[in-house]
Amino acid sequence: MDVMEAILTRRSIRKYAPGKISEEQLMTIIKAGCHAPSAHNRQPWHFVVIRNREKLKKIAEFHTYAKMLHDADTCIVVCGDKERQPQTGFLIEDCSAAIQNMLLAVHGMGLGAVWCGLYPVIHLTRGMKQLLSLPETIIPVGMISIGHKGEEKAAADRFDKSKIHYEEW
Amino acid sequence: MDVMEAILTRRSIRKYAPGKISEEQLMTIIKAGCHAPSAHNRQPWHFVVIRNREKLKKIAEFHTYAKMLHDADTCIVVCGDKERQPQTGFLIEDCSAAIQNMLLAVHGMGLGAVWCGLYPVIHLTRGMKQLLSLPETIIPVGMISIGHKGEEKAAADRFDKSKIHYEEW
Repeated sequence: MDVMEAILTRRSIRKYAPGKISEEQLMTIIKAGCHAPSAHNRQPWHFVVIRNREKLKKIAEFHTYAKMLHDADTCIVVCGDKERQPQTGFLIEDCSAAIQNMLLAVHGMGLGAVWCGLYPVIHLTRGMKQLLSLPETIIPVGMISIGHKGEEKAAADRFDKSKIHYEEW
Repeated sequence: MDVMEAILTRRSIRKYAPGKISEEQLMTIIKAGCHAPSAHNRQPWHFVVIRNREKLKKIAEFHTYAKMLHDADTCIVVCGDKERQPQTGFLIEDCSAAIQNMLLAVHGMGLGAVWCGLYPVIHLTRGMKQLLSLPETIIPVGMISIGHKGEEKAAADRFDKSKIHYEEW
């Protein structure tokens, strides 16, 4: 799929059909995340892959907007390492770029995904830290729920010229 | 260009050849930004396009890592609107996803770009707020320096399996 087509037609997919994400597909998705740009190229991200059904259910219990995990094949929690990038703002930016790459990769291979926010909602980051036994220096920034598509969504036209300013506000 | 190829071969381009970015290219790049996902689909981004040579020089004066703007055709400052998304963490995530879409769009059309960080570095966000007369509620998150490529960089292999964890840390 062409990169611009992928960007313009990607939608958040929350309904999934049965079917596994293959190991090769999973590696391709994570590889896409690893190729994001990062401040000073520190690549401060980590990826926790969750496929255990009980664990996916537990996340859906404490995360109001993650009920789709009941039917998802895989969840990837993207975490930032504060030791590698102590500036939290940059850490969030780097991990977000990685997540966006992953969403586009998923869409490009015909699968469906949605980004569920974690940081900066305290009960979500805390819940995830406990569930995944994350070290104190690791921030769970966001997660991606992935599966075979159980819904098709037409491209949304979000281009809004009123958001463009020239030379100043 | 295929989306996965774009993700894997995109590099930060800091050297530019002479030549203008067309209005059509500029709109395509911003359109890519507008099609990022955002928390609760609030699309809290704004894009300030800077092409004035004096203004580009001024940014390079206060931003240590933005010297490439001397030769760039265009700089787009991606800003987040705190009134539309009061949760700063989400605002940064949304704008970062928009920036990553824009970088991939630029690469896909054969141009070169680099992401220069602004938030959370106080003297950078303050300098940009003054230069662009940004309202108090608008955060300059990051900027993209864009131009025709003056350097070619081979793809970097950043895939690192040690960053992958299964079910827990």
